[in-house]
Amino acid sequence: MNERPLILVSNDDGYKAKGINCLVGVLREFGDVVVVAPHTGRSGKGCSITSETPVKVEHISHEPGLDVYSCTGTPCDCVKLACHAIVPRTPDLVVGGINHGDNSAVNAHYSGTMGVVLEGCMKGIPSIAFSLCSHDADADFTPTYGIIRSVVANVLEHGLPSGSCLNVNFPNSPSYAGVKVCRQAIGTWDNEWESHEHPRGGRWWWLTGEFKLSEQAPDADRVALDNNYVAITPTKIDFTDYTLLEEMRGWNF
Amino acid sequence: MNERPLILVSNDDGYKAKGINCLVGVLREFGDVVVVAPHTGRSGKGCSITSETPVKVEHISHEPGLDVYSCTGTPCDCVKLACHAIVPRTPDLVVGGINHGDNSAVNAHYSGTMGVVLEGCMKGIPSIAFSLCSHDADADFTPTYGIIRSVVANVLEHGLPSGSCLNVNFPNSPSYAGVKVCRQAIGTWDNEWESHEHPRGGRWWWLTGEFKLSEQAPDADRVALDNNYVAITPTKIDFTDYTLLEEMRGWNF
Repeated sequence: MNERPLILVSNDDGYKAKGINCLVGVLREFGDVVVVAPHTGRSGKGCSITSETPVKVEHISHEPGLDVYSCTGTPCDCVKLACHAIVPRTPDLVVGGINHGDNSAVNAHYSGTMGVVLEGCMKGIPSIAFSLCSHDADADFTPTYGIIRSVVANVLEHGLPSGSCLNVNFPNSPSYAGVKVCRQAIGTWDNEWESHEHPRGGRWWWLTGEFKLSEQAPDADRVALDNNYVAITPTKIDFTDYTLLEEMRGWNF
Repeated sequence: MNERPLILVSNDDGYKAKGINCLVGVLREFGDVVVVAPHTGRSGKGCSITSETPVKVEHISHEPGLDVYSCTGTPCDCVKLACHAIVPRTPDLVVGGINHGDNSAVNAHYSGTMGVVLEGCMKGIPSIAFSLCSHDADADFTPTYGIIRSVVANVLEHGLPSGSCLNVNFPNSPSYAGVKVCRQAIGTWDNEWESHEHPRGGRWWWLTGEFKLSEQAPDADRVALDNNYVAITPTKIDFTDYTLLEEMRGWNF
């Protein structure tokens, strides 16, 4: 490359979150960074897009090699708008995170951090999500830096196959047992709601829940995390079930 | 079965939309129906969940074999809350739709209708999304009924593999060339934003765009729709890239 790599960064915790600012610090070692991130928290927004209201962007700060923008839209919107109107050329890398919270197993579907990365991937850009298994706003992200450097260097050098991205989750631990390349663990959420009476009448529901893991295979991402491994789950845009596709050719409609 | 099947229905266009009411009419031939759907439109909400505000539910109507509830949450929330607090037992089937608009190709990631169905699937319930390639609020859904009957009868009889659901898209046409079992077409959105000056200053952005298909394979869902076929795309919760997983075992971190 003749010029420094251009790295687009977003998240679902908002541009002020500790996680994204730690990530930017690491990524600036590799290239010029443009942050386009939600102006406040957008946890659980998955791949949602804003179709019924307009979206606004604000240029927060500029210094050599780093521009920061906040956006009123979803994580996906941030990547879409960045690519359409903000970055000077197609980024070499899209990075989401570092998320405050676990995005392994089915959480990948709900995750706004994965929304960032799936959107980058749909645009043909190598894309990586980083998440730490702690919701603490002041969590310690420093143990993640070495692996982030290694994954980013690998992807900048080798790229990723078209239509595939990486979902990297870190245990909340000062050191790790190692790095494991994983598949999405099988499991589901249970006991998902708490209800309360409103002071003026009527019942409201808050989303909560417990994640129930249905397996203990060591290469399942949530299991690897439980065993103190960093879990890297390669993830595809195409979620066709090709096995069922073949079976269904025999169905009558 | 000793009792009539219990069918949970939701969508992302709101409980008053024509599409969901047409769908309910067909599904009542098969069993008892409970509708728990957003109170207004929730297009493009994907698998998003409501984590930062509470959600409210209203019982709209009751008649023998049909209860209708509206919910202030996302399509996924509707299924989560229905299963937690509304339906008397685990439904035999979760159905999303009939969506006003195409959910083929990468649109499956943005689709609230697919959010309904992926959530049902995560809960271990056979789940089917139906979408018509027309955004017209008064679209004619009657040509879809025969295929809907056939797909629902098949799934009620045979079930679906654990972790897999169906994404069924109909061309906007009075009759079809046939039914094709498909994979997700490869393509991406382009020219995604329009910007306008606000009367009091500042620039706002509206999401719009053109879908660019990158292939013409006849079994790609968007291509099948263009050729006037009904496209049935079997879809998995697990979107691990197993090919890349094997390759990455050779990487050094």
